[in-house]
Amino acid sequence: MDLLIKGGTVVTATSSFKADVAVKNGKISAIGANLKPEKKTEVVDAKGKMILPGAIDGHTHLAMPFGGTVATDDYFTGTRAAACGGTTTVFDFVLQGVGETMDAALERRDAICKADGPAIDYSYHIGVGDVTTPEMLASMDECVKRGVTSFKVFMVYDFGVDDGQFFETLQHAAKIGALVGVHAENRDVNNCLIKEYLAEGKTDAWYHYMSKNEAVAGEADVRAINLAKMAGTSLYIVHLDNKQGVDAVAQAREEGYPIFAETCPQYLAFTKEVYKNGIPELDLRARDFVCSPPMKGKESLESLWNGIKNGTVSTLATDHCPFLKSEKDWGITKKDGTPGNFTTIPNGCAGIENMYPYILSEANKGRISFEKAVQISATNPAKLFGIDYCKGAIEVGLDADIVIYDPKKEFVVKNAENQHGALDHTIWEESKFKGYPVATYSRGKLVFDGKDYVGESGDGQFVKCKKVKFKSPEF
Amino acid sequence: MDLLIKGGTVVTATSSFKADVAVKNGKISAIGANLKPEKKTEVVDAKGKMILPGAIDGHTHLAMPFGGTVATDDYFTGTRAAACGGTTTVFDFVLQGVGETMDAALERRDAICKADGPAIDYSYHIGVGDVTTPEMLASMDECVKRGVTSFKVFMVYDFGVDDGQFFETLQHAAKIGALVGVHAENRDVNNCLIKEYLAEGKTDAWYHYMSKNEAVAGEADVRAINLAKMAGTSLYIVHLDNKQGVDAVAQAREEGYPIFAETCPQYLAFTKEVYKNGIPELDLRARDFVCSPPMKGKESLESLWNGIKNGTVSTLATDHCPFLKSEKDWGITKKDGTPGNFTTIPNGCAGIENMYPYILSEANKGRISFEKAVQISATNPAKLFGIDYCKGAIEVGLDADIVIYDPKKEFVVKNAENQHGALDHTIWEESKFKGYPVATYSRGKLVFDGKDYVGESGDGQFVKCKKVKFKSPEF
Amino acid sequence: MDLLIKGGTVVTATSSFKADVAVKNGKISAIGANLKPEKKTEVVDAKGKMILPGAIDGHTHLAMPFGGTVATDDYFTGTRAAACGGTTTVFDFVLQGVGETMDAALERRDAICKADGPAIDYSYHIGVGDVTTPEMLASMDECVKRGVTSFKVFMVYDFGVDDGQFFETLQHAAKIGALVGVHAENRDVNNCLIKEYLAEGKTDAWYHYMSKNEAVAGEADVRAINLAKMAGTSLYIVHLDNKQGVDAVAQAREEGYPIFAETCPQYLAFTKEVYKNGIPELDLRARDFVCSPPMKGKESLESLWNGIKNGTVSTLATDHCPFLKSEKDWGITKKDGTPGNFTTIPNGCAGIENMYPYILSEANKGRISFEKAVQISATNPAKLFGIDYCKGAIEVGLDADIVIYDPKKEFVVKNAENQHGALDHTIWEESKFKGYPVATYSRGKLVFDGKDYVGESGDGQFVKCKKVKFKSPEF
Amino acid sequence: MDLLIKGGTVVTATSSFKADVAVKNGKISAIGANLKPEKKTEVVDAKGKMILPGAIDGHTHLAMPFGGTVATDDYFTGTRAAACGGTTTVFDFVLQGVGETMDAALERRDAICKADGPAIDYSYHIGVGDVTTPEMLASMDECVKRGVTSFKVFMVYDFGVDDGQFFETLQHAAKIGALVGVHAENRDVNNCLIKEYLAEGKTDAWYHYMSKNEAVAGEADVRAINLAKMAGTSLYIVHLDNKQGVDAVAQAREEGYPIFAETCPQYLAFTKEVYKNGIPELDLRARDFVCSPPMKGKESLESLWNGIKNGTVSTLATDHCPFLKSEKDWGITKKDGTPGNFTTIPNGCAGIENMYPYILSEANKGRISFEKAVQISATNPAKLFGIDYCKGAIEVGLDADIVIYDPKKEFVVKNAENQHGALDHTIWEESKFKGYPVATYSRGKLVFDGKDYVGESGDGQFVKCKKVKFKSPEF
Repeated sequence: MDLLIKGGTVVTATSSFKADVAVKNGKISAIGANLKPEKKTEVVDAKGKMILPGAIDGHTHLAMPFGGTVATDDYFTGTRAAACGGTTTVFDFVLQGVGETMDAALERRDAICKADGPAIDYSYHIGVGDVTTPEMLASMDECVKRGVTSFKVFMVYDFGVDDGQFFETLQHAAKIGALVGVHAENRDVNNCLIKEYLAEGKTDAWYHYMSKNEAVAGEADVRAINLAKMAGTSLYIVHLDNKQGVDAVAQAREEGYPIFAETCPQYLAFTKEVYKNGIPELDLRARDFVCSPPMKGKESLESLWNGIKNGTVSTLATDHCPFLKSEKDWGITKKDGTPGNFTTIPNGCAGIENMYPYILSEANKGRISFEKAVQISATNPAKLFGIDYCKGAIEVGLDADIVIYDPKKEFVVKNAENQHGALDHTIWEESKFKGYPVATYSRGKLVFDGKDYVGESGDGQFVKCKKVKFKSPEF
Repeated sequence: MDLLIKGGTVVTATSSFKADVAVKNGKISAIGANLKPEKKTEVVDAKGKMILPGAIDGHTHLAMPFGGTVATDDYFTGTRAAACGGTTTVFDFVLQGVGETMDAALERRDAICKADGPAIDYSYHIGVGDVTTPEMLASMDECVKRGVTSFKVFMVYDFGVDDGQFFETLQHAAKIGALVGVHAENRDVNNCLIKEYLAEGKTDAWYHYMSKNEAVAGEADVRAINLAKMAGTSLYIVHLDNKQGVDAVAQAREEGYPIFAETCPQYLAFTKEVYKNGIPELDLRARDFVCSPPMKGKESLESLWNGIKNGTVSTLATDHCPFLKSEKDWGITKKDGTPGNFTTIPNGCAGIENMYPYILSEANKGRISFEKAVQISATNPAKLFGIDYCKGAIEVGLDADIVIYDPKKEFVVKNAENQHGALDHTIWEESKFKGYPVATYSRGKLVFDGKDYVGESGDGQFVKCKKVKFKSPEF
Repeated sequence: MDLLIKGGTVVTATSSFKADVAVKNGKISAIGANLKPEKKTEVVDAKGKMILPGAIDGHTHLAMPFGGTVATDDYFTGTRAAACGGTTTVFDFVLQGVGETMDAALERRDAICKADGPAIDYSYHIGVGDVTTPEMLASMDECVKRGVTSFKVFMVYDFGVDDGQFFETLQHAAKIGALVGVHAENRDVNNCLIKEYLAEGKTDAWYHYMSKNEAVAGEADVRAINLAKMAGTSLYIVHLDNKQGVDAVAQAREEGYPIFAETCPQYLAFTKEVYKNGIPELDLRARDFVCSPPMKGKESLESLWNGIKNGTVSTLATDHCPFLKSEKDWGITKKDGTPGNFTTIPNGCAGIENMYPYILSEANKGRISFEKAVQISATNPAKLFGIDYCKGAIEVGLDADIVIYDPKKEFVVKNAENQHGALDHTIWEESKFKGYPVATYSRGKLVFDGKDYVGESGDGQFVKCKKVKFKSPEF
Repeated sequence: MDLLIKGGTVVTATSSFKADVAVKNGKISAIGANLKPEKKTEVVDAKGKMILPGAIDGHTHLAMPFGGTVATDDYFTGTRAAACGGTTTVFDFVLQGVGETMDAALERRDAICKADGPAIDYSYHIGVGDVTTPEMLASMDECVKRGVTSFKVFMVYDFGVDDGQFFETLQHAAKIGALVGVHAENRDVNNCLIKEYLAEGKTDAWYHYMSKNEAVAGEADVRAINLAKMAGTSLYIVHLDNKQGVDAVAQAREEGYPIFAETCPQYLAFTKEVYKNGIPELDLRARDFVCSPPMKGKESLESLWNGIKNGTVSTLATDHCPFLKSEKDWGITKKDGTPGNFTTIPNGCAGIENMYPYILSEANKGRISFEKAVQISATNPAKLFGIDYCKGAIEVGLDADIVIYDPKKEFVVKNAENQHGALDHTIWEESKFKGYPVATYSRGKLVFDGKDYVGESGDGQFVKCKKVKFKSPEF
């Protein structure tokens, strides 16, 4: 026994109970009442604290090239921030290039990651960029062999798929034990609206929202579900953000279809109103909130919370993709000095360090249970992405990815003081959390001590994903 | 450490993992990898087996007076059968008499139970029989104090409530931390149809179904949910059996209301077709299947399975209420020798020993996951009825109510040979189960050895229920 | 040819077209282009005007005893007002007493009506007050023979039916070619809420609404539809006022069930806000708006308008049941001088003269088409109540119940100046209408000249209703 | 008065009544009781007969080039057949070529029509083939000026639109007073499935259905409605054929959106089973039934009938597009002698002569009312396509397009004997109709005498359509 966390309350996806947790060789070796330390065991007192599984952030874009720049956080600074927010595994996106096999893309990207030296464990989803030939489609198989079993298609963006490619990807995934995620927005309508707004001189951030409004997203959610039903496969809708989509997921699940949805803290905490003015008293500008998809109206926000409560929404993830204030300013003046508009703002916001603190704080305030927070932040992502054999719960035999959480600690996000990424601002600035992680362990090793990152660059390892197959909406 | 179960696969409501389970003083003291026995520890080899929490049967009618007789199983024979089927806690119904306070009814009934000597732990729901005065309504409070925090109203039967009494019961329950369950059928329409069928000489068991058809139940489910919404409370629909009801529960949960539903194995395994002919080759007559509510059509059955998969249906229970063949014959000739009809058959069937084997077998065949089976049979009932502080999971600190399950064991129900209740027949006769419990422990004590009941009458203890309050449909 | 209306635009339920309309012997004898008058033909110039069928008000309570008084308008003053608002037929309610056969009630009531001397044609619905014996139920048949083929049950009020009586009434109606209407509110919950509010000292008109809120009505609407489905019959929901009900009607119709709904102008023009303060600048007090059911929230109002547009709502009627201001004051101080409350206000408002002007004005403003206004105010009621053989359209062979409507006339309701009933106030005071009837003909005889009633008391005749049977929601 | 039809029963969209109908100068001049003929008036005895408006077939493909051939019926033979089936107006499709303005396409096509010499009145919808430039889009305006105010886009076929073009077309149509129709099938999935089936050697007609199954159509219906909602416009779904689509239309209409749907007799009379074997006893092969979209399953058929009854489906049209047996054989052996498959069968079936007899026969058998049959076959199409100022009802001032219908006449379709088109077979062979047209008048001129076409080629005139704008689903 290397480590013994004593006196805390263990929280699983379905229950909470007082127990000691023992760790050996980086894995949870025992959970028990009054476990006795061995000679060399490090003993940690967790009285009054909660023992949670580290969160799994199923949606990050580290060091991602976008709009003439690269997302601010690299694989080290991003995962360092994650660790300091209680997240112990991230799934980053590999974007396949045209004519590049997916496994080649995976290799290419993994080299960058390894060079950066990730702070915590990581794995990948493949962002599908080219399935126009049988060879490209078949390159999914090699990824599955290498332990990457989830893929994402884009119904929006020029590099995304059309419905036929989406459909074929779904069919192929089902054959090889993979899960397909989807960024669902209607590309054509989005493009039409952009064209119209710009032609009318409507250039500010509000029109980012308007061109990607509830209906633009909801239509695509409904279509994606219809395509999955037709293909007879499961589907994972990423960053679900609107009521029509939530209703469609709920309906499909009620009919027995294995449709799953992820949402993100930004869709639970903010509404489209941020695009009107940002939050000036915090020096946050509307353009700082520009991400894709944009936050939606209050009705959608409420619908997402209901979806979490009743199981329609299965997971929480961040879509972390931060850009510097100076880059966000390209919405006013482009890099080249010419006038910018809402389409020239790099899309994405920070969140990797805030997800778990945010949702746990909401649980602590009574909005949902702690069990539900753990379920959507750790247990469900582990299952959906095929890593529940080693991650996602405080459970004997799993990796000792553990967060000690102090429900009494008050925390206010101040980017300059207590955030650990590379960004110079955050949409979460001044957010007040009730409760906060006071320690994070990655495979039994302390990486966050309640204040600082105390791990080492490169400690993070690639996590191999199992093949997955979901026949019903059981979680 | 008194007991150490080694080498098995622990199944919780959300995951399965290999671990040893240690028991001390009747409670689970540790779950770990390679736990070491102490000197006096009894070690049980569970290699190749599954370690499950004992089931909680939230709906039994032991020794219940009905239609001129009493349900065949008393508190001992019934709970003995339960133990032999892997059920370690039952919730039996106390039926309040007119003018009798609920706590008096509880006392009266508990005396009978204690006299019988229950084989396993037990608790009660109060069947509301009289809330016509403020005093009667207020007697709910005393029950809650005594640890009985769930109540059931009947929208059918002469002794049941009208909508106003139901509404007031809901409102009062919310104030005192109690849950209200409901037997939902439209009393008036049921009575009208009975009158009509009998007037037309339609007396056989099929008309039991016809007079309590899908619509008769579905209307009442919808109404009950509407009443709970109006009262601003949670609701628990017992023995949900029809698609309209499932859809209504799903809809209410999607809207965020804390509505919960129970179904029973008989609604998952049988359809209304049994009332046409029973299963003659097993000597089961249509009248043997007469229970309330009756089994419904195939569409409803499929809907219930979907409801289990997607979380609309939260729990499984038996509504165990067995009657002798000779009593079932009263449907042909009444006790007094005059001609009988479908209304003179005592309502109810056996099931207490079959629930867990049935649902685990379905899991084993792939219809649902083992986790889901455990969730609806043990974890969710424990939460809903306020006993998750001591029951419902393989979890450190909880009672060592443990089932060792052999997924390879083949089992065929033969009432005369391998069932442990008092009944002389069963609707489950010849049911083939894939997998079967090979040991049941009640608070750490072996009570079923895979063949026989090996506990003692009176071992069972009353389980005190916590107050409960549900604000959302989280499970 | 006795009368020739030349140059107007005829409006039917589905179209508008320029044509002359000829009348002979009280019936429409021809519709044509450039019809030529005969020698003695009275010719009316309708250039720039619309030729509409007179409205059929399917829901009035004339001279109705209620709460210690009698509705202010008798069969003459009420129908006189109707005529001056373009309504040429009313269906009044006969309330059956306990132990009184329905045909006896009909006779009793018809004598009163005849004594009053109705100004326009009239028929009846029977308000079911006693179906507790086969004899009472069977008395429906005699009414049908006498030409009264629609019945109404009350799910609320002490004299109303329980679900079983409702169900039997539905079944019986189907056998004899009758339509059952329903006043749908949950009696028990309504009573509970009244008791609670009064106990809390909440006595003002707002609590009339609160005790008969959206859910109280919606639950009953849903239940009524379920009962009709079970009975396999059509159903007519009177004064539908809430979104849950509209949705339920729409859903049932989509499934093919012959469910029909009526709404009233007060649910289209006012919301529950009137109970907070009435409209003080018009000297209308909250209690003046107390009717049953009360007006609901804005969402319900919008839903009703949508229901009219898409056909979910089939008819418009008034529920005219006026009481004097002094009687409305009983909500403050009862007749006997003791303090009053919302339950001691006689329920009901004026409307009989305002329905057609209101809905036509809304059409004129573009909210719906004139065709739709005619459809719900005249054509559909005629079909549903079995008088389309003589009423409800500008159609050859039908009674010449004709309204000449000036779409340019501006009209402001001023009870003291331009209303023709007996009441001393109206909730429609100061309502501004765009367009107004300038002439009303009853069977070819002018009864309203645009200013005054010019007919004679007793001109109105009883209209015999055909048997009706609706198999689908075709209108 | 040129013509007087005496003694019949006039049927409108909402009622039926006995009346004489007078015609003068090709228009209905009077409807009346006992109208008197003038000296030269031709008097027709219609005792026992029904007087109906001629049907308007809103969907025909005459002389349409398709798959290497041309639809068998030209503008004369097709309209001749129409006239003999009681249809007096057809809307044919002008297919715009790439780079061709829509008005040029209209001119090109109208020249062909005029050369053929149409037997009855006609108008057009423009089949959108190119809106890739502002010029092409703007050419809609010129069509509207010329009296063609309805357009159709294809979500399927290579020449169809993408979602963006569809969206822009909707937006533009709203501006100019036009209606957009849509052929809704998911192009990409359709193509994928075709590719898969052919690769698997699945070449027979069943796979035509399988590749254009319920979900392929339903997805597109849902998407089209979503696009119309986003664009804030009305929408007309042509040949609606599946339950998901019907439900989506109903839902949108319930929410108040002006969404309209057309279905065709083939989706009401046949199911997908025809593709398994055709109807061998009639020498109809599965390939004879190949049309786009194909017939669907029984659940969809029932849903469409319900949709007609409750108003969700507004119109009936034929999609008449006949091909010779020898051309249908290309599904076995292509024109060039190589093996064919389901994609090499020219798509389309006959129907232009059968629509009105079929739906009237169904009315006559009691499935719907005659009023409803008239409404969907004549009145509603006239409104939707902007020709209700002259067509679609038996109404004073409208064109005397009149059908005399004998409800007692029995008729069996025998292509060789009693059909009047150019085709050598029909899917309606041996259909038995209860009731049949015995005379058709086009603008007062007899064109069908109950047996033969008695008009003249070229009698038909172009009907100019009004601008249209629908704000709600009123019909």
